[in-house]
Amino acid sequence: MSLLGKMFYKEQPHVQNLSHKVSIIGAGNVGMAVAVSLLGKHVTNNLVLIDPIGDKVKGEIIDLQHGSLFLRNALIGGGNTFEDSADSKLCIITTGVRQEPGESRLVMAQRNSEIIVKVVKMLIKYSPDTMILVVGNPCDVMAYVAWKASGLPAYKVMGAGTTLDSQRFRVELSKKFNINPSNIHAWIIGEHGEHSFAIWSSVNIGGTRIEKINPKFGTDDDTEKWSVLLKDVLGAAKTIRELKDYTNWGIGMSIATIAKALMTQGGSIYAVSVNAKGKFGIEDDIFISLPAVLGSNGITDIVHLNLTEDELARLHNAAKILKEVQDSIKIEEKEVKCKCRRCK
Amino acid sequence: MSLLGKMFYKEQPHVQNLSHKVSIIGAGNVGMAVAVSLLGKHVTNNLVLIDPIGDKVKGEIIDLQHGSLFLRNALIGGGNTFEDSADSKLCIITTGVRQEPGESRLVMAQRNSEIIVKVVKMLIKYSPDTMILVVGNPCDVMAYVAWKASGLPAYKVMGAGTTLDSQRFRVELSKKFNINPSNIHAWIIGEHGEHSFAIWSSVNIGGTRIEKINPKFGTDDDTEKWSVLLKDVLGAAKTIRELKDYTNWGIGMSIATIAKALMTQGGSIYAVSVNAKGKFGIEDDIFISLPAVLGSNGITDIVHLNLTEDELARLHNAAKILKEVQDSIKIEEKEVKCKCRRCK
Amino acid sequence: MSLLGKMFYKEQPHVQNLSHKVSIIGAGNVGMAVAVSLLGKHVTNNLVLIDPIGDKVKGEIIDLQHGSLFLRNALIGGGNTFEDSADSKLCIITTGVRQEPGESRLVMAQRNSEIIVKVVKMLIKYSPDTMILVVGNPCDVMAYVAWKASGLPAYKVMGAGTTLDSQRFRVELSKKFNINPSNIHAWIIGEHGEHSFAIWSSVNIGGTRIEKINPKFGTDDDTEKWSVLLKDVLGAAKTIRELKDYTNWGIGMSIATIAKALMTQGGSIYAVSVNAKGKFGIEDDIFISLPAVLGSNGITDIVHLNLTEDELARLHNAAKILKEVQDSIKIEEKEVKCKCRRCK
Amino acid sequence: MSLLGKMFYKEQPHVQNLSHKVSIIGAGNVGMAVAVSLLGKHVTNNLVLIDPIGDKVKGEIIDLQHGSLFLRNALIGGGNTFEDSADSKLCIITTGVRQEPGESRLVMAQRNSEIIVKVVKMLIKYSPDTMILVVGNPCDVMAYVAWKASGLPAYKVMGAGTTLDSQRFRVELSKKFNINPSNIHAWIIGEHGEHSFAIWSSVNIGGTRIEKINPKFGTDDDTEKWSVLLKDVLGAAKTIRELKDYTNWGIGMSIATIAKALMTQGGSIYAVSVNAKGKFGIEDDIFISLPAVLGSNGITDIVHLNLTEDELARLHNAAKILKEVQDSIKIEEKEVKCKCRRCK
Repeated sequence: MSLLGKMFYKEQPHVQNLSHKVSIIGAGNVGMAVAVSLLGKHVTNNLVLIDPIGDKVKGEIIDLQHGSLFLRNALIGGGNTFEDSADSKLCIITTGVRQEPGESRLVMAQRNSEIIVKVVKMLIKYSPDTMILVVGNPCDVMAYVAWKASGLPAYKVMGAGTTLDSQRFRVELSKKFNINPSNIHAWIIGEHGEHSFAIWSSVNIGGTRIEKINPKFGTDDDTEKWSVLLKDVLGAAKTIRELKDYTNWGIGMSIATIAKALMTQGGSIYAVSVNAKGKFGIEDDIFISLPAVLGSNGITDIVHLNLTEDELARLHNAAKILKEVQDSIKIEEKEVKCKCRRCK
Repeated sequence: MSLLGKMFYKEQPHVQNLSHKVSIIGAGNVGMAVAVSLLGKHVTNNLVLIDPIGDKVKGEIIDLQHGSLFLRNALIGGGNTFEDSADSKLCIITTGVRQEPGESRLVMAQRNSEIIVKVVKMLIKYSPDTMILVVGNPCDVMAYVAWKASGLPAYKVMGAGTTLDSQRFRVELSKKFNINPSNIHAWIIGEHGEHSFAIWSSVNIGGTRIEKINPKFGTDDDTEKWSVLLKDVLGAAKTIRELKDYTNWGIGMSIATIAKALMTQGGSIYAVSVNAKGKFGIEDDIFISLPAVLGSNGITDIVHLNLTEDELARLHNAAKILKEVQDSIKIEEKEVKCKCRRCK
Repeated sequence: MSLLGKMFYKEQPHVQNLSHKVSIIGAGNVGMAVAVSLLGKHVTNNLVLIDPIGDKVKGEIIDLQHGSLFLRNALIGGGNTFEDSADSKLCIITTGVRQEPGESRLVMAQRNSEIIVKVVKMLIKYSPDTMILVVGNPCDVMAYVAWKASGLPAYKVMGAGTTLDSQRFRVELSKKFNINPSNIHAWIIGEHGEHSFAIWSSVNIGGTRIEKINPKFGTDDDTEKWSVLLKDVLGAAKTIRELKDYTNWGIGMSIATIAKALMTQGGSIYAVSVNAKGKFGIEDDIFISLPAVLGSNGITDIVHLNLTEDELARLHNAAKILKEVQDSIKIEEKEVKCKCRRCK
Repeated sequence: MSLLGKMFYKEQPHVQNLSHKVSIIGAGNVGMAVAVSLLGKHVTNNLVLIDPIGDKVKGEIIDLQHGSLFLRNALIGGGNTFEDSADSKLCIITTGVRQEPGESRLVMAQRNSEIIVKVVKMLIKYSPDTMILVVGNPCDVMAYVAWKASGLPAYKVMGAGTTLDSQRFRVELSKKFNINPSNIHAWIIGEHGEHSFAIWSSVNIGGTRIEKINPKFGTDDDTEKWSVLLKDVLGAAKTIRELKDYTNWGIGMSIATIAKALMTQGGSIYAVSVNAKGKFGIEDDIFISLPAVLGSNGITDIVHLNLTEDELARLHNAAKILKEVQDSIKIEEKEVKCKCRRCK
């Protein structure tokens, strides 16, 4: 009789934990920051890490497993193929290429689009009902690509969008006002990139609308030059990249907050990239960053912000530019072959 | 157009959170301590509180809901009828009567048994696959009654058993050794009541078996009289009752740890009351407190402790006494009528 | 050689944990809900529970200690005398009498005032630098009494005020809007009692000012009758009392959030009761509920809300009434004798 | 009047949070995994990150700050100089060089030793009472060097030692037994490196000593070959390095558990590297990995494990080898010049 046989009276097979599965695609700096943030925040106890390429993902899984004692006995699986992702409730795609020197943004978008399509096809194969959250850049366009490739309803597919930008905005305001960021409401919306913009008119701190105290808040006419703060916010990614070559913790933690809203705590609002058709006068299937209410089956509502005329014009401009990029990308619909052991 | 209509672009209906539901039956001191411990420890975000009798439960639900901000937006429902408990993953029964002065233990057991049967029938009606955890006294017998009334496999029904006794034992050892209780392994098993006993031979602190340092540890011959500590442990409930009339926090928190093991973190071991048939030479369907491995579908294993002859004799004695009580209780199998709005 | 001597090589005496101490005065329903909320939220690992009267507090301490395993090995002490409270960083006073049938509010205030004075004198004796948070009713007046009796700067003494009212308001709005309460900004200020009022004009949900969508929001002219919701909020305590005789969980959890802001997470804003002299045109030392920024040494700022004329008039009216009650209370300054073992 | 002046009535200057400060030296993969684990586990809200060399640390600080919303408003500071570390309660040193191809272990040790000495001198300058935890390799020797350079009592200086090895051992046993690692006691001690070894005789799972069930457990004679599992454990770092070039998450999380024991939760036992003089017959000031009880002022006790003769011989052998390395290292005691703005 084996040691295990002697040690236990068996009642039923060992049963895995109940947490809904979250899969992360991509074991690079961003993917790993997302993984650690999800585990640290106990968003799930059932995490799968997939990277189709290289040994790194295997090392990361073992390394994370050694923290189990610390992580409430979380189940951590994955590898190079997609089968461990089966029956995911949420898939977070962090894979993608970086813009090469001299490469146009559009060429980069096209290259990333091809990766997203392949990944989404594989994810849907194993988890036909999953929600999908896209982190790679250009984020709004990639969310659109993921939606097209997935065949899912639009409310189940979203991009990280300007969630991190909004978070940075709140953190910077928090430093100036010495107020906890959770008491600050402030949005950056539009395109996660050059065409994002702050809704200065809606900044609210501790229940006080700042515009009412200083009507020029955020404008160029403001003698206190609060608009400078926004430059820091929008330049943050560039600053960090110059210092450490990439950004990961801020985006990892903001993805974990979105995932937490989707997995355990409905009703939170984040500026994710969503299909804006029919909102704010936008008529096409354009993915753009807007405050959305998140529930356990994806987006339930998009908040009808009180935009000024100028803000609305900026939003339409961002939408127009995004439409052009979306249209210029070719989304190959061809079948993807699965290489996992189930399919062979 | 309503305010809500103006405020949101609607994408899909509001979707409740994903947490598996836990229902607590009984809104007395113990039930509420369980509720607050479950919510505080984020065991579930989907809690139902039911008490068939009185208005108190309604007040408790509203009072708890006002803590939502603090409780990660947990969903808290319930009332006097059982319908809100539908599709529970775990039901925790805290209802029961206290022993009246002059009342024999058996008469009290019979009265409680009738309550348990009624409650279990209603729970199974709405949640035929639930796990059941019984807190009321005499705990081992009530777990047996719940099992019989439920028709569930034995591994899905358990009593709180000597979990709290074991926890108190570890806490008292912890105080003497100045060691965190999580570094202490020590069990009290048997009957949760007069016939429980400590497994002194297995006490292990920080990887050191104490018996090896002091072979008389816990015996009457021990000059350091460590056995006195056990008297404090086993007398704790009585001491607390004399001081504050009832006990609730300790039992509430120990129930929450069991529930956490069942809901989010498989593989933990607690001394719950289980069907011991086929274990340690016990031949009948007797519920008694033994270290059991808990998974997300109930008990997966019972640990085959290295018991000394004396410890085994005590276990058999406790089993014999429990058998007598079990046999003397009449479990009415008659149909229970539901008064909820669905059934009327 | 003793068992402990054989088991350990001793390096230095056992050293207690580092958490800053929090003392709770009063082991009634509210005091215990505060205790459990503080421990559950890990606001401190060093908790003292004091009730000058009765054995209950001793039973509560033992009962809580048995949850240590669950509570990260928190240190829990206290009893009938104040010496264990020495060197507290924060003292929370929950003691007080309830209004007797037929008793005028003023007589009740006078009785509570005498209790508060005695307690504060003892607390200051052992913790001359503590912050003080008063929960008992009438809350604003009792905060004033505690301030006078303490000799502390006003920013270190506060009452729970309308924190819970504001929290209830946000929870009720949350239910209607299906939005997480943490995305809702809404204040109830004034007197915690009959003279509190909602700042409808500042209600902000997800960055959207509701008044801009519906200018009649909260007024009697509003066809959607949102003001009804406020009646539920302000009547909540009465409703709960009718159902369960007292309220505790909501107030316990809201006190824990205030304590958390004071102990671990500066910069949060709560509607606590503060000395309003010099704010909003109030000229006397009146304690009244206003949004205050909390730091680790007490209140750092009071938020200059954009109040409408009507709101300002209501605030001044509440201040006037509070002044009258404050003036009518006699605060005995006589020395309190300590009965603890240090002083005997 | 400035916006801030209009917005707030000022009561007192903004006051930072109360958490005891933890400083991490080194912003490489290990340092950052430690930082993220400390923040995620809320070990401190007051973190300083220092790396004397390069811009990376500045980028990491900004990147982490953007997660503030997620991290309970933690204070995150630091940079290239040591002044922000002033008044740290705990300093964690993760800096160090890796073994170059062809480089002898001793030469590597000498190079790292010089870095440790410089860092420790600077830390002590600003935080003369700090505890020090060393992560770099060879870990036991570097803890010795840090102790010598610090002038602190031995109980305030420790190395990560075989904490992670023990954790990995428990995780691997956990997988085989399907038991939560927190229910498993198992130690690896000795030198963190080639001369570590498992105390098979003390492996205890759920209160059951495995050796009693299978006396050959862990030996070469064991037909079930459990000893293979240990090879995986001891080879884990090498395996992970082959796959992802470095290890960080496991060590980061194990450092965070040690730090948590030191900062918030006394009485936990970890196999850290300690000065073993006077223990187990070791006569010199040798740092070696042994189970130690951690309190808020460092090590309070070293556990007197029941070692077999064979295990004791292995411990003495490891001690002998460590002594040789310790003796061969030159610890320069020369004064370090500070380049911070305070000293210039």
